[in-house]
Amino acid sequence: MTRPDALFSRVAYIGCGLINGSLARAMTAAGAVEHQVAFARTQATRDRVRELGIVDSVADAPAAAVRGADLVVIGTPVSAYGDVAAAIAPALQPGAIVTDVGSVKTAVIRAVAPHLPAGVHFVPGHPIAGTEQSGPDAGFADLFQSRWCVLTPSPATDAAAVAMVRRMWEAVGMHVDEMDAEHHDRVLAITSHVPHLIAFSIVGTVTLLEEHLQTEVMKYAAGGFRDFTRIAASDPQMWRDIFLGNKDAVLEMVARATEDLAGLQRLIRHEDGDALIKLITRTREVRQGVIAFEQD
Amino acid sequence: MTRPDALFSRVAYIGCGLINGSLARAMTAAGAVEHQVAFARTQATRDRVRELGIVDSVADAPAAAVRGADLVVIGTPVSAYGDVAAAIAPALQPGAIVTDVGSVKTAVIRAVAPHLPAGVHFVPGHPIAGTEQSGPDAGFADLFQSRWCVLTPSPATDAAAVAMVRRMWEAVGMHVDEMDAEHHDRVLAITSHVPHLIAFSIVGTVTLLEEHLQTEVMKYAAGGFRDFTRIAASDPQMWRDIFLGNKDAVLEMVARATEDLAGLQRLIRHEDGDALIKLITRTREVRQGVIAFEQD
Repeated sequence: MTRPDALFSRVAYIGCGLINGSLARAMTAAGAVEHQVAFARTQATRDRVRELGIVDSVADAPAAAVRGADLVVIGTPVSAYGDVAAAIAPALQPGAIVTDVGSVKTAVIRAVAPHLPAGVHFVPGHPIAGTEQSGPDAGFADLFQSRWCVLTPSPATDAAAVAMVRRMWEAVGMHVDEMDAEHHDRVLAITSHVPHLIAFSIVGTVTLLEEHLQTEVMKYAAGGFRDFTRIAASDPQMWRDIFLGNKDAVLEMVARATEDLAGLQRLIRHEDGDALIKLITRTREVRQGVIAFEQD
Repeated sequence: MTRPDALFSRVAYIGCGLINGSLARAMTAAGAVEHQVAFARTQATRDRVRELGIVDSVADAPAAAVRGADLVVIGTPVSAYGDVAAAIAPALQPGAIVTDVGSVKTAVIRAVAPHLPAGVHFVPGHPIAGTEQSGPDAGFADLFQSRWCVLTPSPATDAAAVAMVRRMWEAVGMHVDEMDAEHHDRVLAITSHVPHLIAFSIVGTVTLLEEHLQTEVMKYAAGGFRDFTRIAASDPQMWRDIFLGNKDAVLEMVARATEDLAGLQRLIRHEDGDALIKLITRTREVRQGVIAFEQD
């Protein structure tokens, strides 16, 4: 079927989990693509993607998936990007655009760019959307609606290719920003990576408590801990890759957070109630800022 | 109006914010009380409670509110409990039950018990329910549905009084547990107080960043930080009182959490991917535990 208004004639997804699985559904809903093909690493996932019918065809190898594609979306865990890029490079057609959905960007560029042939355009991207679920079943077409996507092309990247990737994310409902990869990694360390790290850490602390206390903690989790367990239920491999892939920015921000937490401990130890009130009043204002941005 | 099946003939609320305001609504919905009266510290809140019509009458002084009440529910910030207890003590009728809704329990018992006359029964309680909102407008009748309430009576407390408070919380939909106050404070330090402290801390860290970076953090908050800002939007005075009122347990748990966070930093610095995967896999299981408890 030919769609004269489709942005792309053939889109290849390498990896078909929460993000790529949602993107394929959203692209279909938007009528933005003529043919979609997905590759997944395991036979079980490939079978499941076929059953779900979220793409037009499923390939058994990365190179087979990207052959003839005008857009390739890499959506595997970041630690696999180097191997993926090496595998698809020989099969990419001249003028093809390669993008990705990874949560870190400098490490991704280091892993992918050296493999890509001349005439292929690499536009690194990060749709800031997700749930704590993973796998193709977890995807849904509305995932990206009104969320932000950050593209981190280098100054040398073909402008038309960047514009096409931008149009794709806009077609599935996202607002799109561009910034350099280092800046992206620093901002995301604060908004996402360190909050996740802290959630993993505090939930991990609970796993070290005596067993009867653990049971009670789960029972009375409604008091705040529950939110941490939701954040800490995210995909282990993905998050290992993010922490190692954004090591410097994450360690810098954790150090700041730890200093500030120590300051807060001191306020409690010395019972400085006024300073506690001041801090909590200030954090309330940040919440107002977040809500204001969401209403925009 | 006489309700033959009502648990209490006259319930007095000292403080009428999120929790007491919700309880008054829920008690009406359950038909569990004949007359409800509320006292609030400011004229503005008293006027608002009258406008909302969530109680039958509003008193201008704590003593006037509790006169003739068979149940008194203290729901002010914990730091006011001592003054409240001193103010209501002379007006309490013999046999009256006094309970509270505070998030810390040993500090509450220390503040209230010495003021109460013989023949008045004190049953400290903590309904583990809430939102980040505060004030009488934020209350709603369903707040307590299927949540847990912990009562922390001393072994000497009149069993019939404890049973009445239990029946009240059950009437508004809660599951009720009993434990000693020290144990409550230790469990809640983990499930609620330290998660809040960490959320206040990390959101506070953001308020110390350069301004342009702060704006970006709010913009891209969807990645995880957003959940922290919601937790950190809670009432400043209430949380100051909790941290100072449960100082020892909070400091002990923060120390554990900080140690574990340092361990996690080391794993990232030394790029121990396997250990990271192991930790995150373990935290996923805690999430399953929390969900299992909620489905019970």
